[in-house]
Amino acid sequence: MRVLGVDPGLTRCGLGVIEASAGRGVQLVEVGVVRTPPDQAPHLRLLAVAEGLDEWLARHRPDVVAVERVFAQANVRSITGTSQVAGVAMLAAARAGLPLALHTPSEVKAAVTGNGRADKAQVQHMVMRILGLAVAPRPADAADALALAICHAWRGGGAGSAVRAGYGGADTLPRAVGEGLTPAQRLWAQAERDARRAGAVAPRR
Amino acid sequence: MRVLGVDPGLTRCGLGVIEASAGRGVQLVEVGVVRTPPDQAPHLRLLAVAEGLDEWLARHRPDVVAVERVFAQANVRSITGTSQVAGVAMLAAARAGLPLALHTPSEVKAAVTGNGRADKAQVQHMVMRILGLAVAPRPADAADALALAICHAWRGGGAGSAVRAGYGGADTLPRAVGEGLTPAQRLWAQAERDARRAGAVAPRR
Repeated sequence: MRVLGVDPGLTRCGLGVIEASAGRGVQLVEVGVVRTPPDQAPHLRLLAVAEGLDEWLARHRPDVVAVERVFAQANVRSITGTSQVAGVAMLAAARAGLPLALHTPSEVKAAVTGNGRADKAQVQHMVMRILGLAVAPRPADAADALALAICHAWRGGGAGSAVRAGYGGADTLPRAVGEGLTPAQRLWAQAERDARRAGAVAPRR
Repeated sequence: MRVLGVDPGLTRCGLGVIEASAGRGVQLVEVGVVRTPPDQAPHLRLLAVAEGLDEWLARHRPDVVAVERVFAQANVRSITGTSQVAGVAMLAAARAGLPLALHTPSEVKAAVTGNGRADKAQVQHMVMRILGLAVAPRPADAADALALAICHAWRGGGAGSAVRAGYGGADTLPRAVGEGLTPAQRLWAQAERDARRAGAVAPRR
């Protein structure tokens, strides 16, 4: 299953494509951002994002599109811009005939790090580990798009189960897989063991 | 100048087209709504709105698209849906190569009724008078789309002045035209005189 994750934003819209397969886990296909200049007219910025999305959809032919579900933030002005971009991304998925999944930031953090309140550095660290990357994905914002795609591959299961699945509370852990730990939790535990073994400071939890 | 006004909403997206000309004032071309069922997947609802917009744009070939600028409301959940639809409408304008104007609800009310805090009935009443309609436009929600289009025609001036003009305070009156009264204020004053003459209760101010 190939998943396109979209972290919506008007200044920077993060895009991340992963391939998830039963045997080989999840692998990075491409990560990047669409940037639009703040001094451009807002509808032209949305057009630039839409064209970027269409180009990625055509080039990577994902099976499903996962978009971050936008919630109330401190800055209402940025919510509306972010929601506009989310709407454009959802429309791009619909026009491409693809299923859509929406995941909240907490769901994504919980799925990837085992902690629904993880900070940006923890998410980035786990995205690197999960995808077996030697360096952090650049730009940093785009790590969120990859985390979203990973979250969907693990939580959403098949593409058919996409489309607004209702997950429990925002900060609950994802349903455990296998031995009571999610893949993220197992990786996180491993990362902590590695860090201790190397004498490094354990990643903040 | 032909203006398409869009009152964004996921359940009902109001659309109104007017023709504004120097000699003949503003005239109704068409008014309606695109409805989408709440039980449909959100990206398919956005697709339905986008297709409705594209159909109106192709049929009416407006010179400019005016979209209501979405602001914080009590209900954050509805803001995100409304903002998504606004984003889709803004994108439709950009794809059609049209200029876009954003007006706040207060700007629209002030332009059409002379009062930035006018209620729905006052807006509807003035839309009827301004467009010379014998009955209120149906459905009621769509009157807001017409008010937005009228607001743009009066305040925005030519299509070239569209694109995010910064108007003063949200509740200030529009710049006066002619004798210190906007067209709306003159019409409103006339409506009040007519109402008094007919012995009716003057419209609430």
